[in-house]
Amino acid sequence: MSKTTIQSGFGKVGIDDLSVYIPRIYLPMDALANARGYEYAKLRDGLGLQAMAFPDVHEDTATMAANAVLDLLLRNRLDPRQIGRIYMGTESALDGSKPTATYVVDMLTQYFSKEYGEDCFLNCDVVDLTFACIGAVDALHNTLDWVRAGQDRIGIVVSSDVAKYELGSGGEYTQGAGAIAVLVCQQPRLLAIDGNWGVATRSVHDFFKPVRPFSKTQIVAEVLKLAGLEQVSPESILAQIPSGIGVEGFLDSNEDEVLVHKETPMFDGPYSNQCYQDRIREALNSFAKAIAAPAGTPVTERWSRMAFHLPYAYQARRMFSEVFFEEARKSGKWSEIQSEVAFEQPVAGDFSSDEAYQEAYAQFLRAITKTRSYRNYVQEKIEKSERASSLVGNMYTSSIFMALVSTMEADYREGFALEGHKIGFFGYGSGSKSKVFEGEVQPQWREVISQWRLMDRLNERLPIDYPTYEALHRKTLRKSVGGVSGEFYLDTVNQEPGNYTGARTYRWQLDKKPDLILQD
Amino acid sequence: MSKTTIQSGFGKVGIDDLSVYIPRIYLPMDALANARGYEYAKLRDGLGLQAMAFPDVHEDTATMAANAVLDLLLRNRLDPRQIGRIYMGTESALDGSKPTATYVVDMLTQYFSKEYGEDCFLNCDVVDLTFACIGAVDALHNTLDWVRAGQDRIGIVVSSDVAKYELGSGGEYTQGAGAIAVLVCQQPRLLAIDGNWGVATRSVHDFFKPVRPFSKTQIVAEVLKLAGLEQVSPESILAQIPSGIGVEGFLDSNEDEVLVHKETPMFDGPYSNQCYQDRIREALNSFAKAIAAPAGTPVTERWSRMAFHLPYAYQARRMFSEVFFEEARKSGKWSEIQSEVAFEQPVAGDFSSDEAYQEAYAQFLRAITKTRSYRNYVQEKIEKSERASSLVGNMYTSSIFMALVSTMEADYREGFALEGHKIGFFGYGSGSKSKVFEGEVQPQWREVISQWRLMDRLNERLPIDYPTYEALHRKTLRKSVGGVSGEFYLDTVNQEPGNYTGARTYRWQLDKKPDLILQD
Repeated sequence: MSKTTIQSGFGKVGIDDLSVYIPRIYLPMDALANARGYEYAKLRDGLGLQAMAFPDVHEDTATMAANAVLDLLLRNRLDPRQIGRIYMGTESALDGSKPTATYVVDMLTQYFSKEYGEDCFLNCDVVDLTFACIGAVDALHNTLDWVRAGQDRIGIVVSSDVAKYELGSGGEYTQGAGAIAVLVCQQPRLLAIDGNWGVATRSVHDFFKPVRPFSKTQIVAEVLKLAGLEQVSPESILAQIPSGIGVEGFLDSNEDEVLVHKETPMFDGPYSNQCYQDRIREALNSFAKAIAAPAGTPVTERWSRMAFHLPYAYQARRMFSEVFFEEARKSGKWSEIQSEVAFEQPVAGDFSSDEAYQEAYAQFLRAITKTRSYRNYVQEKIEKSERASSLVGNMYTSSIFMALVSTMEADYREGFALEGHKIGFFGYGSGSKSKVFEGEVQPQWREVISQWRLMDRLNERLPIDYPTYEALHRKTLRKSVGGVSGEFYLDTVNQEPGNYTGARTYRWQLDKKPDLILQD
Repeated sequence: MSKTTIQSGFGKVGIDDLSVYIPRIYLPMDALANARGYEYAKLRDGLGLQAMAFPDVHEDTATMAANAVLDLLLRNRLDPRQIGRIYMGTESALDGSKPTATYVVDMLTQYFSKEYGEDCFLNCDVVDLTFACIGAVDALHNTLDWVRAGQDRIGIVVSSDVAKYELGSGGEYTQGAGAIAVLVCQQPRLLAIDGNWGVATRSVHDFFKPVRPFSKTQIVAEVLKLAGLEQVSPESILAQIPSGIGVEGFLDSNEDEVLVHKETPMFDGPYSNQCYQDRIREALNSFAKAIAAPAGTPVTERWSRMAFHLPYAYQARRMFSEVFFEEARKSGKWSEIQSEVAFEQPVAGDFSSDEAYQEAYAQFLRAITKTRSYRNYVQEKIEKSERASSLVGNMYTSSIFMALVSTMEADYREGFALEGHKIGFFGYGSGSKSKVFEGEVQPQWREVISQWRLMDRLNERLPIDYPTYEALHRKTLRKSVGGVSGEFYLDTVNQEPGNYTGARTYRWQLDKKPDLILQD
């Protein structure tokens, strides 16, 4: 039995609208494939990868988020003083203490202060939530609870990330970037979401961004070696530096170990896939309990569409055959489907070891993905959600919302009558957690989506070539590639010694010429 | 008029109990004062500083939090499977993506799995919230909303931080560390908290922890100079390093700029005090609107005690005279108090410039802090909350909860009949935001507090001397100072190259001898 959940006294709550911000420039996937010696067709057909959004010189997590929220506010003609909270999900934070969401409020205040005053966001509650790619789903979950509990409450959830991997690494071709702002309110026009959520958590290291200690002694030793001074002891070099009380530099820092922050993660791709597969299955079971689903009823039959966290476009379709199999068994349909399963190579009969069993099981799940039944299931429930991901890449916290926007815009364009249908959501964050919930499409959904123009906007972007991409990746460029127009941008990062080193200044585009970006 | 807020169908919600974890070792403030040439009496009498908790070699944000939550679960005989969420507030995160809360769940699972199974936290929703010192208040705010909305929900909020500053800096003597776990449920025994919150947000740089870019070229140039090789170009050294595709090292990293993560903040003390003073005033105004307080009624008269974020013990009493003044004017009491105000030096009559006016006003507010009326007000409403802070130092996210524990234990010991009284809360996070809310002391409060023994436990700690403190601060020690017993500890941080570099392993004390801590 499901436990009682209190219902809002203010009617339905949910998502009223979403605004997507994607960098203006992108790298076509064939350019990356050529540079790395990969076969583009394999990336396209196997993983669904066609292009990756890449942030320009003037962009970061904060600008992308602010641009998304601005679009949401302007398009819906919202008075900023009505917004009770802006909750941000990101795993690309710019600071260890000051939330990136405050930079978003700083930019929005610059924009709106002339009309609404300097205090236009004074009573807005903002904070960052961090849990890899699921932090914005957590922000949504909590903002829904908050909107449900008070009259006329309006909240915004914003997700923003730069999914960056080392050059040449196995994650590089899944890179992407962007931000999505989500308007959460009562009587939503797009999707109503109730209080039933499934959740599954286990602490693992499938993908993480640790602070990385490097020894100064060792760094100095390496430099001496390269300079042909192996006989000089690194300690004697460091000993020349004054006492180290109260300093903020690199070689003269108080600790021998310097902690390096990398924008790129540590990750284990196959292991992360397995964690994703396990967590979403466990969270779906938790959701089934929350809604008190009758035993034997496939839960996913409730959903006409499903929106997953997509680290690459085809992740969900590759990882979901296990749930498909378990549900088919429950419903008794498996006997029909079983005959479609064809193995590329015979499954080893020896299941005596755990490893052999695991490998045979994985092979079996892969074989299911090739059945007609599963392909139809994917085509009906998942495929439309993948289209934007193929053109943008991994957006981390935004990916699940992008899947929603992608599928709803496709249904709108193709004339599908989605109103009254339910959409299932599968969030995943490495480290690891999954959440499963559902939304019901509202009667006014078409009027919202008619303004999105997502696919049109993706088609209007500027392609860049491989050398430009590599220079952006290595951060050797100082001028914007795509120009700056009608957007917030990063103006300066303070380099002066003192109490404000590292402070970031953002501006609205009209204050400055587009070609004068960042201090040199 | 206050807008309608939905009330729980499940009775009161609030805080049932709190568990405080403080490192076993501390530095007496006179030892630091002696080493730095400060006058200890000034630190003690002016700022309320007597001792600072400092984390031992085997401790970090995660171990402190896990130890606090463990105590909360054991003391209240809770089945871990009942806990629906563990929401963590911290500004000392150990990773940019994987929330520190997952490490907490990892440790707790190790402890409870024998009795409750490996899945004992599987359906527990965990996440980190980041907003300087107010992130745990945000976690509490959202967890209260969640508990209010469903039958029998139990959540835990945990705050954990290491407040570390550069040696010799102006923040050093305010350092501290620790964690607090807060049990949030229906029918709480300690404090009932309703849905009325005041909030004030402005983006500022009073205190922050930016990623700090350092140029590799410049670091190499410095080493060459110290080695007497100024004629060698740093570029020629770096050019010897292979291409830099797909590497994870320091000198061979893909970018010229290395981003350094510091545990210590950038901060501007006087400016941060001003931001604190302004935000709590603004948040109190916002709270007054939320409860529809009649004009002219001092809001703080509702509260027998007040718990503030305390970056140092006397911060609140030094910063609150402005609110005291404003409320006295509203209520008409100012005419009585005014005569008590004595200026140490005459206020400059020239208020023609903003600066002169600001300085005169600040002087006026300082003079108010010396009046008998204000001293009585502080003694009644604030002083008990400062006692623990004086012995522990800044706990960042935990400081406001420590103020609560401190004041309630003092009232318990002194036999004050606190039941039915209201306590006002003033959270503050640099960057910046304040939240104001209130709790009502419940009839069973004494049975909860009788188990705390906070002051006894603080008195049982182990003092360390200055050289030990400096070695801990510089991280040159490898063995624990205070030993490890009956607690979770950091076992290893993986140093192997590969996909798991930086992965942290934690253990419960019984697995390992106390004197074999950390890999060398």
